[in-house]
Amino acid sequence: MYSEKVMDHFQHPRNVGEIENASGVGTVGNAKCGDIMRIYLDIDDNGIIKDCKFKTFGCGAAVATSSMATEMVMGKSIQEALQVTNKAVMEALDGLPPVKVHCSLLAEEAIHAALWDYAEKH
Amino acid sequence: MYSEKVMDHFQHPRNVGEIENASGVGTVGNAKCGDIMRIYLDIDDNGIIKDCKFKTFGCGAAVATSSMATEMVMGKSIQEALQVTNKAVMEALDGLPPVKVHCSLLAEEAIHAALWDYAEKH
Ligand code: FES
Repeated sequence: MYSEKVMDHFQHPRNVGEIENASGVGTVGNAKCGDIMRIYLDIDDNGIIKDCKFKTFGCGAAVATSSMATEMVMGKSIQEALQVTNKAVMEALDGLPPVKVHCSLLAEEAIHAALWDYAEKH
Repeated sequence: MYSEKVMDHFQHPRNVGEIENASGVGTVGNAKCGDIMRIYLDIDDNGIIKDCKFKTFGCGAAVATSSMATEMVMGKSIQEALQVTNKAVMEALDGLPPVKVHCSLLAEEAIHAALWDYAEKH
């Protein structure tokens, strides 16, 4: 049912945690399942994402997509990070079952919310 | 949103894993969110649950309820274990938000399925 990459990122999630004094924080909820996700971004003076961490109460698909998404935005500019869609993340994970696609949206939305939070502060 | 006990069992889940040559194995799926749960029981000759482990792809609420449910059935007879309802598990966790109640059903259903699997083999 789940690809090897999904199981790997689910069982060994990357970048779980919080960032103190983060440049931007985004918290989003999933109306469909009631799960929540928070993403922390550390952005340097050149607008490059230096660090990215996440916390979620969501399911394995939410954990795997957040793990992959945080890896994909790391080192990117804000413009580049905005192009990391949930579709790109799912492709990088070799796909997700259709019933779990809504879970993958949490990571994309939380990253956007964190970038928005950063933009508002600057 | 979540009680301290829920967060504790979510962040430090008890009894995660598999049991080789388990006396009973129960696998159930959650139609609402597409998550899956598997529970392994080790039952001795007197019908007492000696060990209980679980694996899930489900969310934090599914993890917390399974963690608590496996603790609650440990050491119990089959009859006693059947009385460990998802209501009792939620109470032991000081409650769950209404939107997450369906997640707590996974543990109860998986334990029942595993007991059924055991009964069919004996
Ligand atoms: S079911 Fe809620 S995030 Fe996947």
